[in-house]
This record gives sequence, C-alpha cells and structure tokens, in this order.
Amino acid sequence: MCNDDGIDAEGIEFLAKAMAQIGEITVVAPNSPQSGMSHAMTLGKPLRITKWYKHKKFFGYAVSGTPVDCVKAAMAQILPEPPDLIVSGVNYGSNTAINILYSGTVAAALEGAIAGVPAIAFSLCTYANADFSYSAKFAKHLAQKVLKEGLPTGTLLTVNLPNLPEEKIKGVVVTKQGNSKWKEEMLERNDAYGQPYYWLRGELVLQDDSLDDDEYAVRHGYVSVTPLSFNLTNHSFIDTIRTWNLKKR
Amino acid sequence: MCNDDGIDAEGIEFLAKAMAQIGEITVVAPNSPQSGMSHAMTLGKPLRITKWYKHKKFFGYAVSGTPVDCVKAAMAQILPEPPDLIVSGVNYGSNTAINILYSGTVAAALEGAIAGVPAIAFSLCTYANADFSYSAKFAKHLAQKVLKEGLPTGTLLTVNLPNLPEEKIKGVVVTKQGNSKWKEEMLERNDAYGQPYYWLRGELVLQDDSLDDDEYAVRHGYVSVTPLSFNLTNHSFIDTIRTWNLKKR
Repeated sequence: MCNDDGIDAEGIEFLAKAMAQIGEITVVAPNSPQSGMSHAMTLGKPLRITKWYKHKKFFGYAVSGTPVDCVKAAMAQILPEPPDLIVSGVNYGSNTAINILYSGTVAAALEGAIAGVPAIAFSLCTYANADFSYSAKFAKHLAQKVLKEGLPTGTLLTVNLPNLPEEKIKGVVVTKQGNSKWKEEMLERNDAYGQPYYWLRGELVLQDDSLDDDEYAVRHGYVSVTPLSFNLTNHSFIDTIRTWNLKKR
Repeated sequence: MCNDDGIDAEGIEFLAKAMAQIGEITVVAPNSPQSGMSHAMTLGKPLRITKWYKHKKFFGYAVSGTPVDCVKAAMAQILPEPPDLIVSGVNYGSNTAINILYSGTVAAALEGAIAGVPAIAFSLCTYANADFSYSAKFAKHLAQKVLKEGLPTGTLLTVNLPNLPEEKIKGVVVTKQGNSKWKEEMLERNDAYGQPYYWLRGELVLQDDSLDDDEYAVRHGYVSVTPLSFNLTNHSFIDTIRTWNLKKR
C-alpha cells in the first residue's frame, strides 16, 4: 500500500482498514506529502526507511522519498516476496485526464504494474470535507474482484470517486483517460527584498462530454474506473514518420 | 528549450547552438540537475526565475523547479506567445523503454505536447565521454523536418542517439517504446550513528530483440526516433472490465 499525500494522511488509513479485511497488508508510504511528484524517483541521495506508528500501533514504513521510491523500496528491501496487489491512495483530489501524468498516487500503481504486480490507484474528487467511507468500501470490493479476475501484465486501474455519500452515487462506469486539461497562470509576487517569485495556479477545465471519459463521469456522480498501461507509443504516427525518410546527415 | 540535467549542462549548450541556426531560441531550464524527476511539478512552494549567463553572454532563464515547471513557466510567464517548437536535452543517458516514464527530459517535451506545441526530446546514450556533436547536427535536421511537416496534436518525439562519431552511426530508425526494464536492488549502509540508509541502484536490462524497439536500436548503433502521446488508457482491456459488472455496494 502506498499514497502520495504521505503516510500520515487520512485517506491511506481508510484504505488500510479496508484492505486489512481481505488480507495481510504492508503500508510503505512517503514520510511527507508528495502531491504532483508524478513518476519521480530519488537519485543522488540515499533513502531512509523508518517504522511509523498511528494510534500507538505499528502502521507501516515511512520512506524519505517519492511514491515510486516507496514501491521500489517495498519490492527491493521491505517485502520478502512480491505482493499479490498494490493499492495506492485514497488520494485527495481527482487523478483523471491529464492529472494522471502529474499524480504520485497513480505513479505508485504504475510502478507496481511495471514490476508485474496488479495495481489500483484510488482518488476522491475533493480537496475539502473528504468523506472516505464509501471509497474504502468500494476499494475492498474492487480489490477482491482484481485478486479474483487478475489484470493483464502491465495493466493498472485508476479509480476516481465523487465525494458523495453512497446513496447519492449514481453508479460505476469504465472510462478512458479524458482530454480535460489545466488552464494555468503564474501569479507574480515580490519578496521582502523586492525580488519576484511565482506561484503556478490553475484549474482543470472539463473538455469531455461523455460518460466514457473519466473526469466527466466523476463530475456527474459516477465512480470512474480506468484501465491504464505504461506504454506511451503513438502507434498511429509510426507509419507517417517512416515516410519522412530520416537519414543521417 | 529545456532539459533535466540543469541549465549549466553541456548537452543543452550544444542543442542551443544548433537551434539558433534555424530560428530564435529561448532557453528555460532548471537551475539544478533534475534527473529522474519525471513529470513532477512544484506545488506548495513558489518558483524563482533568474537570468543565466554562460561565457559572459545571456544564455536563458533558470527556474528553481523541475523540467515541467520550466515549460509551464515559459508558457505562462516568459514567452509572449507559444513557441513553434519545444526541444529538450540533449540528455546524458538513454530515455528509452521504461526510462521514458522516469525522464524529466521527456516530461518537458510531453508538457509541450499537452500545451499543443510540437516537441522533441533528445538523449545521448552514455554517462561518460559524451560527444554531443552529432546529436546537435541531427537535432537541427529533425527540428527542421518537424517544423515543416508538423506533428499531430498531442504527439511528441523522443530521440535517442548512440554515443558514436557520425561515421560509425548505422542509420535512423523509427521505433516504439520497448519493454526493457530496470533490474534493481537496494544497497544498505550504516551512517556514523549506526542507522541504516539505502541507495537504490540497478541497470536497464534489454528485453527486446528488434530494431522496431528503441533501446535495442540505439544499442545496435542506430538513432532511434519514437513518437509518443500522453494517453495511458489501455483500450484493449476496457471491454473485459465492463464484463465484470462493477456495481455500487
């Protein structure tokens, strides 16, 4: 189990409780928040791994690195053998559309898929008043399904849930990564010495219109389940670029 | 122009010289090395942007963040209008196969593609005795081709070059992202106080056998050109998972 909000986040505690109902769990998560860290890994400095306690009980291992570092540490150092399943989250905020690329939560699951382990990332689409109870319940249900059915090699699932009580959720849809993107701007401020510094800010603008798209689905009250892989090849363009006849020169 | 080895790296200087021969350039690159940062972006702290000089001449803008931060800063703050092309590199070390996910150099080009700008990432497959001269020459050739032919929306190219003199390079091939992966281990050491710390290390193990695969091609003396997109959906698995009949529960 991993996340990108850090081992002390509320979401991973809900997820751990749900997973403990269906099997033996090991939590390996960053010792500090790592939102937006994507698939970053730590090079050039060593990692620390420390035991972490919550409510005076052993909760898991905290790693001084990124979500991807955590999965690598779990596989190479902490676990005696590969797990049956890697789950990541529950993340604060949606990991749909273009956010899939920025997300450390999804990256942890991707890293699982790279290592050949079935993996699922869970995200709750809110930054305030999070209610993780239905997320945890659905995570347990889906994890059991994945353990039973399996996933193709190199495939992971990313799950996005609306921040609604169970009775208000309309259903579950299987979606693709949609086209919604951030509209960004930089806010310029001056420091105490008159020097400028910049804050990047923006909002995810919906650019889809179908329940087949992740962000559209979750904004319309559905749980969105998207199968992903880690191959970025644009196969449809290979034939075209071959006609360019690129040669040494 | 961007990179992930930092604005002071040798590779970006070669690339800048080559690009300056075909158009007006703006360099926006990290103020420190950012290898392995993938698509990470800086949240929760502001960015600094400073003018950077090389050989006593203005070279470009150094940003206190990741390669993706640099592209965002360039588009939102530094450039008055979007560029015709974003180039990233020339990186020390190959960005093929699974390394495409870890690479900050490729991420900068991906960020360009997300913003709708044609983009190319260049990597030289060595960590020692780098000879960037042919990389720069090929970059100029390919950039001219891309400016003339265009790329489909959301498409970027990642180019990997063998560290060979021009006469020893066998040719140019268009490839897909191959299956080569890292075989990793953790090295455990004790610090001066007897506490353990860990270094992640490994090597990229070739798991392909065709000139259609990026890492195979470059190890066999070819320049590898791979078209990428930023959609990770595993479309082939969508129909299967729909048969799971996932429901609320």
